[in-house]
Amino acid sequence: MKALVFHGPGQKAWEDVPDPKLTEPTDIIVKMDTTTICGTDLHILKGDVPAVTPGRILGHEGVGTITEIGDAVTTLAVGDQVILSCISACGKCAYCKQGVFSHCLGSEGSSGIGWIFGHLIDGTQAEYVRVPYAETSVYKLPATVSPEQGTLLSDILPTGHEIGVRHGAVKPGDVVAVIGTGPVGLAAIATAGLYGPSRVVAIDLDANRVEQARLFGATDGVVSSAKDWRDQVLAMTDGLGVDVAIEAVGIPATFQMCLDIVRPAGHVANVGVHGSSVDLPLQDLWISNIVMTMGLVNTNTLDTLLKLVAQRRIDPDPFISHRFALGDIIDAYDVFGRAAETKALKVILNS
Amino acid sequence: MKALVFHGPGQKAWEDVPDPKLTEPTDIIVKMDTTTICGTDLHILKGDVPAVTPGRILGHEGVGTITEIGDAVTTLAVGDQVILSCISACGKCAYCKQGVFSHCLGSEGSSGIGWIFGHLIDGTQAEYVRVPYAETSVYKLPATVSPEQGTLLSDILPTGHEIGVRHGAVKPGDVVAVIGTGPVGLAAIATAGLYGPSRVVAIDLDANRVEQARLFGATDGVVSSAKDWRDQVLAMTDGLGVDVAIEAVGIPATFQMCLDIVRPAGHVANVGVHGSSVDLPLQDLWISNIVMTMGLVNTNTLDTLLKLVAQRRIDPDPFISHRFALGDIIDAYDVFGRAAETKALKVILNS
Repeated sequence: MKALVFHGPGQKAWEDVPDPKLTEPTDIIVKMDTTTICGTDLHILKGDVPAVTPGRILGHEGVGTITEIGDAVTTLAVGDQVILSCISACGKCAYCKQGVFSHCLGSEGSSGIGWIFGHLIDGTQAEYVRVPYAETSVYKLPATVSPEQGTLLSDILPTGHEIGVRHGAVKPGDVVAVIGTGPVGLAAIATAGLYGPSRVVAIDLDANRVEQARLFGATDGVVSSAKDWRDQVLAMTDGLGVDVAIEAVGIPATFQMCLDIVRPAGHVANVGVHGSSVDLPLQDLWISNIVMTMGLVNTNTLDTLLKLVAQRRIDPDPFISHRFALGDIIDAYDVFGRAAETKALKVILNS
Repeated sequence: MKALVFHGPGQKAWEDVPDPKLTEPTDIIVKMDTTTICGTDLHILKGDVPAVTPGRILGHEGVGTITEIGDAVTTLAVGDQVILSCISACGKCAYCKQGVFSHCLGSEGSSGIGWIFGHLIDGTQAEYVRVPYAETSVYKLPATVSPEQGTLLSDILPTGHEIGVRHGAVKPGDVVAVIGTGPVGLAAIATAGLYGPSRVVAIDLDANRVEQARLFGATDGVVSSAKDWRDQVLAMTDGLGVDVAIEAVGIPATFQMCLDIVRPAGHVANVGVHGSSVDLPLQDLWISNIVMTMGLVNTNTLDTLLKLVAQRRIDPDPFISHRFALGDIIDAYDVFGRAAETKALKVILNS
């Protein structure tokens, strides 16, 4: 088969590799129908994730059709079309039993991290993929949801929802600010509305992206290059700050922006993947009664979001900016990697 | 009357001052029966809290007897003995209506901080004190609870309970570590047991203090000067770390210790008052699913704790290491300020 193989920092190729085989009775083999590229894949290609070794097939999102099932699999059948969660959950460990699939202790990878596709085992940017722990890690795609829509449920929509909105404890009447309106920030914006906030404020350096965020449910926008950006945000509250600040970039400056606008007893939910430490001004914050959260998605709300997509209460389609054939994935990486110019959000690859 | 007056960093005196007067119809005047000294008072005397200006009477804890009531006061009477909360809650602002008294927006002080006694208005280390917002800020002392016990409910027991144990979301079966076994750390230890943890681990540099913590409910102890202190803690868990790490010191090193021992998806509850920023290694933590909390006590569980003290389910008496007459408060400060030598926990001042 063909697959997108990582060959060390800066190097990748769409090339022939052996077909995947069932190795555990709980495995399935899936022929990928649709996949996509995540910002995390770009981090890997920069060399930021040393656990990813040369020879690894990248990708952790997608929808595919089952072609083989392991002997222990009883609830899935060849021919089923399934959403692959970006998190592989053994279903048996202490974390899985609590729904904290992000820290699955299963033996595949055995890293204590549930994200193993395209990280510790071969991933989904391929014609076929071996899916471990299949019955606890995939979701059947209903006929009313397209494979492209399902692909956005592998990672990005649950991440915005769980790590942004739910960690941030968004509740009716809240003013919610989302800093960074890339795909994951937009996923937080698109799911925040489920909880009845009074305002969802999109904040970004790029005025076009701030405007675009309204299509996803933002009620207000602030361009953060403006000197008075903070005053603009506070003016959308009672003057004390936002109830929930969601960080969806992953750099110290945007984390600090969250601290600058959160009200006493508010929530800061970090979604961004950070590459360096941040200075936490505890001399000011100790008295603040804020709650700070961070984490990897569990995808334990994937099923709920899938129902909401099926009901058209969440619309994944605006996330899709570009479509490519799977064989043109190198071009797709190029477009996604130059998102500032190309305005790429999610680039979809169809087989 | 006599009172303990702050005269700028390093300077204080027990001296004659005018008697306090009712200034608002919601005020009461209280004759102090019992008060105490907080670590925060030492911070003020070091000059760490610039909002405290020379001439301010210090202190924010204690029990007293009402001698005068304002015209609006209907539920309290002259002669009632009351616990003064360290937090003055107007009862009318948006924060008070949510029980977040720590950030009361009331006009006294109008700082957005509910801690005003001995900070923005005159405090409780005095023969008499004016108590604003009396009906929403004091609690009648039942006959079964002594004034000394009640004094420990003004601040320290609610702080350990609310900012340590409840912010840390301690639940049945948890392994809870408390770093720092001064009075506030011991208050977290003494109240953690209410929530059914499997272990409460006291961690301190001082072996005597670790041992002493067992009297307050610690099931285990680790002396953190040991090179293998972290391994000792992890050995008390399934190897993955503690469910809840409570910081009760207020320096970067002890905050980092919490991060070193908390398990994925665990809680770090900061109780310590910090004087400087800390380095938050978000490059490691973004994936950790930990929750970090911090804050000033609301005393919205004071009434609950009062009932538990009355029922003897919480015993405040072991917190009291020394007793002085109120007029000997300068000596009491000396003993409390040299706690490492004197083994002082809470020093009680009786009138």
